[in-house]
Amino acid sequence: MAGQDCIFCRIAKGQIPSVRVFENDRVLSFLDIHPISDGHALVIPKVHAGSLSECDEGALAELMRITKCLAPAIVKATGSEGYNLLCNNGRAAGQLVDHVHFHIIPRRLNDGVLAHWPHRDYPAGAAEALAEKIRCHLVIS
Amino acid sequence: MAGQDCIFCRIAKGQIPSVRVFENDRVLSFLDIHPISDGHALVIPKVHAGSLSECDEGALAELMRITKCLAPAIVKATGSEGYNLLCNNGRAAGQLVDHVHFHIIPRRLNDGVLAHWPHRDYPAGAAEALAEKIRCHLVIS
Repeated sequence: MAGQDCIFCRIAKGQIPSVRVFENDRVLSFLDIHPISDGHALVIPKVHAGSLSECDEGALAELMRITKCLAPAIVKATGSEGYNLLCNNGRAAGQLVDHVHFHIIPRRLNDGVLAHWPHRDYPAGAAEALAEKIRCHLVIS
Repeated sequence: MAGQDCIFCRIAKGQIPSVRVFENDRVLSFLDIHPISDGHALVIPKVHAGSLSECDEGALAELMRITKCLAPAIVKATGSEGYNLLCNNGRAAGQLVDHVHFHIIPRRLNDGVLAHWPHRDYPAGAAEALAEKIRCHLVIS
């Protein structure tokens, strides 16, 4: 789903309004319309890619080059203390728009955002077996 | 804090054991020792960088090139439906180790992970004013 059917492609083309914080020929950043915290921004490649894995290597490198400079500017502008960079891939992971996007979420200590982190441990041997299974599926292109 | 004082530098050098899923000359991925979900992995540059912003542009590009291939392999190996890619920067954002790292967190629908997403709206004009303030702080290097 790209072009006329993709809301982020339409935002990139200026067909849907957004509050832009940065733009060049390959990357656009705009404020999330329903922010978790003030300054919560999205960063997208202008060329459509449904998910991270579908994103062109060069476009992704440019996206990160901008993001690593943009995030500290957002932290300074909002008087925050840190930030999360988050990319949700797939409905199960909370991706609502099928155009790859990174959330920059400014954070303050004890603000309660993303606070549910229910970690656990692997049974003996399970981690090693899983790592081997992952390697069997891995293709670096 | 790098070298002997950084736990991830020591893992990269093999001085502390880890369950590795991928390694090349610049990037290492290993399973998180306290996973949120099975297959929860970390991806790090081998050269020390405290946070995303301190990470060399080339190292970051290579990190993402690997990550975009690695994440789908983890999803397949764990029978998951999607994944979050998360990079915490600063204590306030939940960064516990001061060596930049991306979490790949496999997800299943309604698994309750990262489910607290307390969004809100900006008062009229506030988003535009904030975007201008961010642009004033932005330096793309």
